[in-house]
Amino acid sequence: MSADLHVDAGPLVTLDDDPAFRLHRGGKLETRASVPVRDTADLSLAYTPGVARVCTAIAERPELVHDYTWVPNVVAVVTDGTAVLGLGDIGPSAAMPVMEGKSLLFKEFGGVDSVPICLDCTGVEEIVETVVRLAPSFGGINLEDISAPRCFEIEERLRGLLDIPVFHDDQHGTAIVVLAALRNAARLKGRPLGELRVVVAGAGASGIAVSRMLINAGAVDVTVCDSKGIVHTGRTDLNPYKAQLAEVTNRRGHTGPIENTLAGADVFIGLSGATVSEEAIASMAGDAIVFALSNPTPEIHPDVARCHALVVATGRSDFPNQINNVLAFPGLFRGALAARASAITEGMKIAAADALAAVVGQDLSADYIIPGPFDPRVVPAVSAAVADQARIDGVARFPCTEEPRP
Amino acid sequence: MSADLHVDAGPLVTLDDDPAFRLHRGGKLETRASVPVRDTADLSLAYTPGVARVCTAIAERPELVHDYTWVPNVVAVVTDGTAVLGLGDIGPSAAMPVMEGKSLLFKEFGGVDSVPICLDCTGVEEIVETVVRLAPSFGGINLEDISAPRCFEIEERLRGLLDIPVFHDDQHGTAIVVLAALRNAARLKGRPLGELRVVVAGAGASGIAVSRMLINAGAVDVTVCDSKGIVHTGRTDLNPYKAQLAEVTNRRGHTGPIENTLAGADVFIGLSGATVSEEAIASMAGDAIVFALSNPTPEIHPDVARCHALVVATGRSDFPNQINNVLAFPGLFRGALAARASAITEGMKIAAADALAAVVGQDLSADYIIPGPFDPRVVPAVSAAVADQARIDGVARFPCTEEPRP
Repeated sequence: MSADLHVDAGPLVTLDDDPAFRLHRGGKLETRASVPVRDTADLSLAYTPGVARVCTAIAERPELVHDYTWVPNVVAVVTDGTAVLGLGDIGPSAAMPVMEGKSLLFKEFGGVDSVPICLDCTGVEEIVETVVRLAPSFGGINLEDISAPRCFEIEERLRGLLDIPVFHDDQHGTAIVVLAALRNAARLKGRPLGELRVVVAGAGASGIAVSRMLINAGAVDVTVCDSKGIVHTGRTDLNPYKAQLAEVTNRRGHTGPIENTLAGADVFIGLSGATVSEEAIASMAGDAIVFALSNPTPEIHPDVARCHALVVATGRSDFPNQINNVLAFPGLFRGALAARASAITEGMKIAAADALAAVVGQDLSADYIIPGPFDPRVVPAVSAAVADQARIDGVARFPCTEEPRP
Repeated sequence: MSADLHVDAGPLVTLDDDPAFRLHRGGKLETRASVPVRDTADLSLAYTPGVARVCTAIAERPELVHDYTWVPNVVAVVTDGTAVLGLGDIGPSAAMPVMEGKSLLFKEFGGVDSVPICLDCTGVEEIVETVVRLAPSFGGINLEDISAPRCFEIEERLRGLLDIPVFHDDQHGTAIVVLAALRNAARLKGRPLGELRVVVAGAGASGIAVSRMLINAGAVDVTVCDSKGIVHTGRTDLNPYKAQLAEVTNRRGHTGPIENTLAGADVFIGLSGATVSEEAIASMAGDAIVFALSNPTPEIHPDVARCHALVVATGRSDFPNQINNVLAFPGLFRGALAARASAITEGMKIAAADALAAVVGQDLSADYIIPGPFDPRVVPAVSAAVADQARIDGVARFPCTEEPRP
């Protein structure tokens, strides 16, 4: 019953000749019992009649749901399939392999249980009310691959309505890892973030979130560009999120194409899917920092960028300095869930970035500004920093450092 | 950080002194990767960039979601927490231990992945639209512990809107196991179902579903009672579901209390939570069949009933002939998912009951009319019968007998 794909002018090729399809056959995720069910005695504890006592106790003392269910350790990965990877609006079913993958990474990297939820609706109101109705089943909500600008409003409204962590990874996961890498790149360059002139190419979910977070972390000279050029207050074609960003960026009042602001800049952060010319990169200040993060094709080839830059990072695993969200979300949620945080604050995100940057430590070099995804120090460092910051920010409901699942 | 419960006039007792609480600590369910993620190469297949090829293929050929995601093998256990066990309306959080338990049983008994979804809404419209929005994420929907009569409308509407199996276990799971047990009890008595006079005590979700299914399976003389007495067409206090049932039951035109119809009846099926007197049971026909299924307290003690009956069944594991839904739903969904059934037909439910009854075979006796929950023959028998019937009924989308997960 293998699925076949007819390739033009060639023989019949089965999809399973591709190792990615072979690996995906039957899915990548499963549920498991974490308690034994071997006999009638086990059944009478895990199910009726024993379970009724646990239900009754939770009905009387709602906080016991944290102790006696899986809820505090399970994150829903929620999408509507409108902005999946670089593929665009492919719908909820075609988005499932990415969401399953994300759930798998939550567990494998963070020890956090996770369920992919692909929604058959795209309206802001519909998505918000659906997630609110689902919320008693989950300890946290990871929004994923929802197109901008709806993703901003959906996240904001859910943060206001729910008392569990809500986190749009395309925005904040990317922003955390970019900030961590930029902290270390700045250290290498010998200048603090506040002194660097930063250009962000891309004003979608990740571009806006990265820009906001850099500003919150101390950057003062940030300019953002979208497909029409530099985002500035004189433009009338900006959505409310870009307009808001125009107010707090572009202190030099640049206008026109990205080249107009890239000349002399210290940092380029590409999150656009577009390309940038070698000339434009060459026009940057000395010891430039170039993060060409579009995948699979970076805004400029890293080998070319390296001729004009002190540090180059990409989103790819086959070049040094991979900016990979998996460095952030597993530890971030693990820490937030351990603290039973009611929200993920800006402070918790910055703490995650700083902890991630600190893992690099004395090994810092131009080809090592960020740890690799399999570095076992990452999740414990991020998780502990996030849980600590949750307590400092007053959103923790669990004072000790106990892990969510013993 | 143990949770403490102060018991009147006694010492401080921790909840975890109760083995049911101890077992529930940290929850009973987890998610797991079913593929390896050991290194960057694995990651590039399970996640980006490899996953993009799988997403693209599904976007182009939607049926591939069955081959390359976990969707076709995962069932959502959906509740609003309004009718949990015998506990009533305890809300979505307190319902979670039961739903987690149900999900665990799906996997342990049926090899079917399952996710508990406890909804923070109780309106029919809200529940229906929420489940419709979630549907791309699941291969089937098991509704659970939703109060009557809303459960009937919710299930009917979802069956009309979705092309995956939708099954309210409190109704049909119970009905399947009751029918299986009654088939064997009738065999023991030496009379076919169509000749037996049946009294069903209880006109909630399970009482109505059992009555309907017995009629569909060949019973012709069924009388239903609710808390006000015999359900008949002269009553003006019936909800639409009971009124519909009144049209096709009670051919003798009985009225008044249950005793008025139990005298001379062959079969008593208690699904009411109320009690029935020994005198009423004693007034039944010779070689009576008594299913006293309320839990934890049967309508009449089985030892007492046994004095007046050929066969007695209960919902309890500590007496013979336990009527336990776990005999039905794992195999039923396994078979339906294997056939990629677009619905669960009445024929599939009857096929499940007949297959379950047949497991007993020549070992039939008054104390063995139904297999035990751990009998390894049950799920394969039920699953195969359901998948076959799905093909016969024209709802199967997968012609072979292949299992959903290789």
